[in-house]
Amino acid sequence: MTMSSRASERLVHVPLGERAYDILIGPGMIGRAGGEITSRLKGRRAAIVTDENVAPLYLEALMDSLQTDGIEAVSLALPAGEKTKSLDHLSTVCDMVLSARIERNDAVIALGGGVIGDLAGFAAGIVRRGVRFVQIPTSLLAQVDSSVGGKTGINTRHGKNLLGVFHQPDLVLADTAALDTLSEREFRAGYAEVAKYGLIDKPDFFAWLEKNAREVFKGGAERIEAIAVSCQAKSDVVVEDERETGRRALLNLGHTFGHALEAATHYDSSRLVHGEGVSIGMVLAYQFSARMNLASPDDARRVEAHLKSVGLPTRISDIPGELPPTVQLLDAIAQDKKVKGGKLTFILTRGVGEAFVADDVPSSEVMSFLEEKRST
Amino acid sequence: MTMSSRASERLVHVPLGERAYDILIGPGMIGRAGGEITSRLKGRRAAIVTDENVAPLYLEALMDSLQTDGIEAVSLALPAGEKTKSLDHLSTVCDMVLSARIERNDAVIALGGGVIGDLAGFAAGIVRRGVRFVQIPTSLLAQVDSSVGGKTGINTRHGKNLLGVFHQPDLVLADTAALDTLSEREFRAGYAEVAKYGLIDKPDFFAWLEKNAREVFKGGAERIEAIAVSCQAKSDVVVEDERETGRRALLNLGHTFGHALEAATHYDSSRLVHGEGVSIGMVLAYQFSARMNLASPDDARRVEAHLKSVGLPTRISDIPGELPPTVQLLDAIAQDKKVKGGKLTFILTRGVGEAFVADDVPSSEVMSFLEEKRST
Repeated sequence: MTMSSRASERLVHVPLGERAYDILIGPGMIGRAGGEITSRLKGRRAAIVTDENVAPLYLEALMDSLQTDGIEAVSLALPAGEKTKSLDHLSTVCDMVLSARIERNDAVIALGGGVIGDLAGFAAGIVRRGVRFVQIPTSLLAQVDSSVGGKTGINTRHGKNLLGVFHQPDLVLADTAALDTLSEREFRAGYAEVAKYGLIDKPDFFAWLEKNAREVFKGGAERIEAIAVSCQAKSDVVVEDERETGRRALLNLGHTFGHALEAATHYDSSRLVHGEGVSIGMVLAYQFSARMNLASPDDARRVEAHLKSVGLPTRISDIPGELPPTVQLLDAIAQDKKVKGGKLTFILTRGVGEAFVADDVPSSEVMSFLEEKRST
Repeated sequence: MTMSSRASERLVHVPLGERAYDILIGPGMIGRAGGEITSRLKGRRAAIVTDENVAPLYLEALMDSLQTDGIEAVSLALPAGEKTKSLDHLSTVCDMVLSARIERNDAVIALGGGVIGDLAGFAAGIVRRGVRFVQIPTSLLAQVDSSVGGKTGINTRHGKNLLGVFHQPDLVLADTAALDTLSEREFRAGYAEVAKYGLIDKPDFFAWLEKNAREVFKGGAERIEAIAVSCQAKSDVVVEDERETGRRALLNLGHTFGHALEAATHYDSSRLVHGEGVSIGMVLAYQFSARMNLASPDDARRVEAHLKSVGLPTRISDIPGELPPTVQLLDAIAQDKKVKGGKLTFILTRGVGEAFVADDVPSSEVMSFLEEKRST
């Protein structure tokens, strides 16, 4: 893949056998949705799930496109925000999908960010034990991460994403024009996941980002390139380990700490959004790896410097407001689903692009590390 | 498989690749559960879901067996009956499983009939996107049908089993001693599904049942044989078509009519239980096939005669109480999940052991057929 590609559109194919699908990346995808769907799916009905922020911007264009291509569609706009990933909203979505008589070859369409994608995908995975699913991610985070790979879910009082299914989409339409309406903060949050792919196993991509971050934020070819590389990276991992029994866990780099911090702020997006939690979490993962003599402190500093340069938070103390005691953070980590037989599993690293799964991290080490880091 | 086998125990292996599992059939399985589970699963925690009828009979024995083999278990007894297959109860079960910190290699155990198996299996399929699942079916219906094959689900106001996932168990323990506490009516209801396997594609098995039904009802070797043949038959179909894209639909013989009748009685088990609906539904499927000149009226009479001989209902008029208008029955059929592109899909037959999928049945024919049959 050439980093300097000037193509205004990209296709990433996710080769998952009978669950294979395409990711189309470029401007104007929402207006082409009807045609892209009818050329791939047999059903001619659709139930669109979106949120109250996205609906005024793109719902009409999507409905028009579907109608033009003969797809009968209904829609439901839910409140925006992480709290929408609840069992109550899942129930509402399923009821709407069943009322619309969506059958197995018809589609549930998620139009929105990661919250809408996770919720609508869960509904698509359980209605009639699985109907077709189309992702139209409108945030950078959703375009490079959550819309690809089939993880769906909702939150419970026990933690984030603790209920869900693996349900691959049949098509992902990443309309890069939609990113122009994102706030700077939302775009940055998505960028944390872009940088993550470099940090996991693509040191050249991370170096490219260090040089081209400004252009990626500005838009244009570099942005499309960064999204395509990210989708390809995610696809590669998912194809190797669809149901996360091994290598796929690498995608959780920064997420174990990140989820604990999100839980600690009660998923209050005014204080911390997912990508910001991941940004701080990745820096913590590098710092913890350095403390365990696995990685060089220079790498930890390099990672922090780049994330900071684009305006992302990198320290626990960057989170506004009070946080609960460290022992509660640790409890959130232990309840995280990446726990096996009681031992803490972390994604640690030996350097930039050298992440690995460590499944025997002593909780006492994590405890004292967090105690130290929360005050710096 | 020898029909005259005297073995007091049988093993049916379901060869589904990485989702392969064993079905153990025989008396005393509940008391051996701990050993059978620890020899197959890595986790040492379990969450048992059962109902208030089954709990007093078998829960203590199961808990003892798990404890003896070092499995830490919690349990939850829900109200018995079809109404328990609801989103509310699913939520309760998931919360209990998460509170027990069940991890991916730990197990949810269903101890009970089809309702408990479907509900607990659904929870096992969505907690942490899938944890281990052990079925301990205590009804004949669950032993020969619902505990095998991975279909899980709950009912909604739109119909039966409209939300669910495919989630294969890791082990099925069919304790045939548990059947001794079933009422005659419950046993008969399960027997309808046993007969179904003969009617689908095993004419010799149906003939064997015609000769041996009395012994199957009495217990002993013939009962174990009938259960083993049924599990093997179901396994064969599931292995060929795990997610019901084709041949697996044959297992719905009698079920499209049956579900409509269940819906028409509002799942009131005092009027109609699932197996009874299937019994009437199978007779209707044979009669409708005869009406369409597909099967001989003699076959329809033979099927009805056998089901009637064991005491099963075979006519719509056997259902006590008022039924809604025929057009509502048809609506329930159309909302059934075996609908594709608006056409009615039925399992029809060319004779005993010759069922097939018909996916273009005109609803007008079904309407007039039902009008006629409900008054006979």
